Parts: sequence; C-alpha cells; structure tokens
Amino acid sequence: MNAEIITIGDEILIGQIVDTNSQFIGQQLNKIGVSVYQITSIQDDKQHILNALKEAEQRVDIVIITGGLGPTKDDITKKTIAAYFNDDKLIEYPEVIKHIKEMFIKVNHPFNDVQRYQAQLPSKATLLENKLGTAPGMWFYENGTVFVSLPGVPYEMKGLITDQVLPRIQKQFKLPFILHKTIMTYGQGESMIAERIEGFENNLPPYIKLAYLPSFGKVRLRLSAKGDNKEILEKELNDKVAEVYQLIPEIITGIDDDNSLEKRVGELLKIKNKTIATAESLTGGQIAANLVSVAGSSAYYKGSFVTYSAESKINLLEVSKETIDRFSVVSREVALEMAKGVKDKLQTNYAIAVTGNAGPTTDLTDKTVGIVYIALVSDSEQVVQEFNFGQPREKVINRTVNKALEMLLKEII
Amino acid sequence: MNAEIITIGDEILIGQIVDTNSQFIGQQLNKIGVSVYQITSIQDDKQHILNALKEAEQRVDIVIITGGLGPTKDDITKKTIAAYFNDDKLIEYPEVIKHIKEMFIKVNHPFNDVQRYQAQLPSKATLLENKLGTAPGMWFYENGTVFVSLPGVPYEMKGLITDQVLPRIQKQFKLPFILHKTIMTYGQGESMIAERIEGFENNLPPYIKLAYLPSFGKVRLRLSAKGDNKEILEKELNDKVAEVYQLIPEIITGIDDDNSLEKRVGELLKIKNKTIATAESLTGGQIAANLVSVAGSSAYYKGSFVTYSAESKINLLEVSKETIDRFSVVSREVALEMAKGVKDKLQTNYAIAVTGNAGPTTDLTDKTVGIVYIALVSDSEQVVQEFNFGQPREKVINRTVNKALEMLLKEII
Repeated sequence: MNAEIITIGDEILIGQIVDTNSQFIGQQLNKIGVSVYQITSIQDDKQHILNALKEAEQRVDIVIITGGLGPTKDDITKKTIAAYFNDDKLIEYPEVIKHIKEMFIKVNHPFNDVQRYQAQLPSKATLLENKLGTAPGMWFYENGTVFVSLPGVPYEMKGLITDQVLPRIQKQFKLPFILHKTIMTYGQGESMIAERIEGFENNLPPYIKLAYLPSFGKVRLRLSAKGDNKEILEKELNDKVAEVYQLIPEIITGIDDDNSLEKRVGELLKIKNKTIATAESLTGGQIAANLVSVAGSSAYYKGSFVTYSAESKINLLEVSKETIDRFSVVSREVALEMAKGVKDKLQTNYAIAVTGNAGPTTDLTDKTVGIVYIALVSDSEQVVQEFNFGQPREKVINRTVNKALEMLLKEII
Repeated sequence: MNAEIITIGDEILIGQIVDTNSQFIGQQLNKIGVSVYQITSIQDDKQHILNALKEAEQRVDIVIITGGLGPTKDDITKKTIAAYFNDDKLIEYPEVIKHIKEMFIKVNHPFNDVQRYQAQLPSKATLLENKLGTAPGMWFYENGTVFVSLPGVPYEMKGLITDQVLPRIQKQFKLPFILHKTIMTYGQGESMIAERIEGFENNLPPYIKLAYLPSFGKVRLRLSAKGDNKEILEKELNDKVAEVYQLIPEIITGIDDDNSLEKRVGELLKIKNKTIATAESLTGGQIAANLVSVAGSSAYYKGSFVTYSAESKINLLEVSKETIDRFSVVSREVALEMAKGVKDKLQTNYAIAVTGNAGPTTDLTDKTVGIVYIALVSDSEQVVQEFNFGQPREKVINRTVNKALEMLLKEII
C-alpha cells in the first residue's frame, strides 16, 4: 500500500519553515505498513493543487494533504479539494459551528464571520474531529483512493493522524508489515564500512534493503524488510543484524535509533545507579539536549551549565582566572576545571565538559578554528582529549557532541 | 524563473530524518529571484527518479537534485542521471581521484575501489568542486533546462550552493526580484487579525501576496512582492507594512523574521547595557537557545541553568527545600526563588525562570497538566505569572518559551 504526502504552503517553498509534518506522517504510516512513495510540497495555488492531486491519485492509494485549512484568505485548500471532486459544494456543518463556539468561549474570543467560514466544508467529506483546533480533518474515498486533508498546525495534525487517520486506514485496507532495524556505528566512514560488508550486502534477498545514513562521524545502517508474515520478517532481520555484528563488531554502538549513544549511556547509568552532569561552551547545551532527549533521563541526568563567557566559567564553575589567563579559555586545563567544577556543584559520579573554537573566526582566543577540548571526570579518573574538527561551524559542534558521548560511553563501559 | 528541488532518499520518506536541505536551498534561490515551484522527495529507485526528472523538466527551468551521491550501493543517483541524458556514460575524472586522495591522506585513510567509483561521473557533467567532501556536484544544461545534482550531506550541499550553484544560475538567467517582509505579531489569533485587516488585504495589487503563518500564540504576516524593479518593490512593500502598522499597532513585535522577540530583547538589552540569565525546568533550555540564537548575544546573555529535579533547583539555584515542600516544585514561589537564584549567581540585571508541568502525565506534582509559572526578576521589580497552556506537551513548552520572551520584552521596554 503506497501513500503520498502533499504539503501545501508557500512558507515551505521559500524556506521560511522546515516541513516537519511530513516526517511525522511518514513515521506513523510506516508503522502500520503503508509505504510513503513520495512527498510533494506545493504552492497555495488552485491549479497547482489540482495538478498535484491528479498526479498523486495516479501514483498511490492514499493521499494525505496538510496545510491550508485556516480561516484566512490565503488558505484555498478546501475550495480546491471540493472542486477536485466533481465540483462539490461547500456546506455548513452545524457540529463544526458548535465545536468552534465551544473552543472560543473557553478563551473568551467572540465568534465572527471568519470562523463561520471554517465550518463550511465539501459535502462529500467525512469529517474527522479536531479536538485541538477549529478546522476539522476531512476524509474522502473516491474511485478506490483515499484522500485525507488535515490542518498544517503540527500538534493538531498529529492528534488527527493518531486518533483518526491511522485507525481508518487500517480498517479500509489489508496492510503488509514494514520493519526496520538500524545499526548505529561510529568512528568509521561510509566507504570503509561498505567495503567490510560488501559480501553481506550482495547476498541480501530482494525484500530486504540496506541503506547508509552518514552524519558527523556516525553512520547508521538501515535494514528494511517488507512482507506479510511479521514473525518471519522479524527473525530474518535479526539474523541479518547478527551477521553485520560479526563483520564490524568494534564500531557498533547499538541497534535502532533509540539505541543511540545517548540511550546506551542512559541505560548503563541507570543499571549502575550513577549520575552525570555537563558543562558546555561551544556546543551551547546540545550535549545536555541529547542526554535529556532520552525518556527517564531525570533518573541520572542532574543538570547543565552553559557557560559562554570566561566570566561565567569562573563564576559558575569556579574555573580559576589564573588558569584562563595562563592557558587561554580554549585549553586542556580549562576543560578539566570545568568538568571538575560541574561534578562538584551537582555532586554527580560523572561530568563532561567541552571548550573550543567552533569558528568561523578565532574570536578572542589564539587557538586555531576547529580545536576542541573534551574533559571527562569520574569518581576515579580524569581525562582530557584534544580534537581538530576543522570547519564549518556546524560540523565542529556536531562532532564535539558525538565525540563527548562516545568518550562517556567508553568510560562507563 | 521557477525551480524544483528533488530530494532523493528513503530516509526522508520513512521519516527517519527531516528534510532541512530543501529549506536552505529554497531560501537561497529566493534571494537571487528564483521561485521554488515545488519540492519533491522520492525513493532511491531508478524508475522513480527518472519519472521525477521528466515531470520536473516539464514544470520548471531549474532542477536541483540532492542526495544519493555517496560511494555505496544504495546510491543510484548518478547512474540514473546519466541514463536520463540519452544514456550518457560514466567516465573517470582524474581531478576527482586527485581530490579524494588528498582528502584521504589528511585523515590517514587508505584509498580503495569504493572511492575510485566516486570519481566516475556522467561525461556530460560540468563538475562543481566540493571542498568539504569527496563527491563533486554536477551541472547539466540540456534543452534550456538546468539540472544540478548535489550530495545530500548538509554542509557539503550548502558549500556547493553558495560557492558554485548560485553564481552560475545568476550568470545563466536574467532574474527578477522577489522580496519578502514579515510582520511579527503576538497575542491575537489568525482569524481576529484577518478581520482587522480585511480591507487592506482586499486592496493588495496582484503582484503582492499576503500569507498568515500562525504558531503558538504568534502569527507572522508575510508580504511577498515580485517584479523587475527592486527599488519600486521595496518602496511599495514598506508602504504596505506601514499600512498594517496603522491597523494593528499594539500586537506587532517587529518586522522580518530576524526581528523576532528574542532579537528585539537582545537589541534593547544591548542599548541599555543590561544583562540577563535564565533558569529553566520544563522548557529544558529552549529559552536559552532562543536568546543565544541571536548573533552577538554573548554581550548580554550570561548563562543558563537547566534544573529538572527538585534537587538541582536546591543545589544550583538555592531554592529552599521548605518552599518546595510547602508549595510544590510547580509553584509561583519556586519560580520566583529560581529567578532570584540565577540572577544572584550570575550577577545579571534580569533573570527569567520557568517551572511547570508540560504533561502528558502529572508526574510527582499535584498540579494540573499544562500549568506553568513564569517569574521575571529585575534590579527593581519582580513578577510571577500563572498560565494554563492545556495540552499537548509540545504546545505547553513552546507557549512557555514565547510567553517568557514576551514578558521580558514588556519589562525591558
């Protein structure tokens, strides 16, 4: 079963916003066995929407449209969808009027004509109740194709997908299983890995696909399988993962995206009943954000200091001014004092600290752009490493985050 | 001049990654007067790529393709592009071999057959040098249409767009000007604003378009104009912005995206030579991230404490245990002590602190899900406000961030 996601809105095309809706919809459809064949982002333009609907109908079984259901003049989606279905008429739905009035009473807004227009929808639509907003979702089933139109506001769209759209699709179609396993590796490039697992890759059956997803010193290897028997697929995928493990054991951190570095660090800390804190300069809180992104992290993650300035390193972390003056704020010595400072303040078993020069210019320090120091202090050990991550800025920051988590994982193991 | 962006990769379609490349390319093309007509994300599949190229060629003048240029087997883009141009052959480019070897010597990797394959490219391609990676970009000009193929790694793609693709497009085509002005508003919904500026909207000339972009209590009004005379367009847009200012003066925070709340806060703090620090619970560093996103923020932003646990609020911010026990960790009193604590620790003129229950469950506190307390302390004043942001979690967190910045802006003014 194939789907196409059509997102409508000039704001995506001019790059004013990133289209995160499609990611969510893609993930959710995949879980119930629907493949997303294509994502198409188009303009708020009647003819363009009509063309996209027609093309999508020829390509796929399910078309999910988001965006353009707001009450204002630039939102032409619903009129265009009505036109697409043999010039359907817009009619007023009393239950929508009632719902909008209820929502507006709560926040003390008056009900006006602009909102009344939101209750006018194509007569062929099956309405999907939107508990979190005023514009309902719409479901159409025409000539064997399902069309779903959803508002573009992310949390409204998410509620509708989860509560209404997925159960209806599961009821309408008999779906296969699509399973993925992602093997997380670090420290070796895509081409090196490809060479090491070449034989394995050549022998994969046609219903199992392998993809390489490189980013900043990590490569994810994704195996995807599609079929009707979930148990057999699962077994086969697990066997394939075991084969890869045999071939490149020393660079694998775990399986599946949720077995990322930060997840493994978290699991180990929980098992060992240990705690951690972080102090960050150039990464601006991103190491903390990674650690905290794991559900249940409050059990071991005690907090973070983001210290941009020399001043805040001194005041917050009790790095000595002398050390900064003597070695510069980007130095092995300062990284170590930062880590000791945060460990001490938050009374944890581990602390990690980073200082460096992400570039593009050298700022106030005399250090080369790209130089980073990562310090890791535990109850029994302390270590500082120097790296040169080159440029650009984005790469320096991301590689620092990954390298810090790698060091931490090795230390905890 | 219209463009289409084609992103190739199953990882986008299954929702494993968000397509941020298209946003960057859209922004950059817009700046030089090229409209992005459509963004199409497709599978790593030969026939699908061929179809997408053919359809795009019929729709637009410039086709930008990203993804699928890596050295591994799943990357079939270059073979498919060669096939698209009348079965062009792949030939080995010695300059690419040389470039890859130079890159590999730097990092001490051996050069192997997988890399050698990266130097084999369609014979019709004009190569675009990729300083940051091994796979070069490719430029084709066939039957009046430009095709550009770029690697999917974001920083490599960005380097190629900026250094090579934009200058070449400007040389190839005579381009119009596309200008945008975005008016940032807060505190009033889309439909209310629409009613207030209805007359204005009805009188806009056809070459100026208005769009509403709502998110979490803020609405951006984007005016877009297209034409050949930059000066006239700029004047007209400025006149239109002034008209909107007349109609809804009290809800406007500024003009253009870079005149966001955090930017205005930053400008005012700089002018007044004041400093600020933050202490965050449920927002997990997002208020800090917003403040720090403004270039030059180190002049006034002194640092952040992310204190998830009651324990870290006590240890880091010297919130009293008694206050927490008596009023609960989600309370007016704790928010205020957090703000005072961080102001004291970091010796700033302003401090903002938030505590709340983002949901979905009520955790350890007895407070309703969605309840948030925001405290703002300055040298002369202190204020705490209670909000109920309802659900879901994402909305609670985002509205807290926006509301905190709003309170801060009002206080500084």
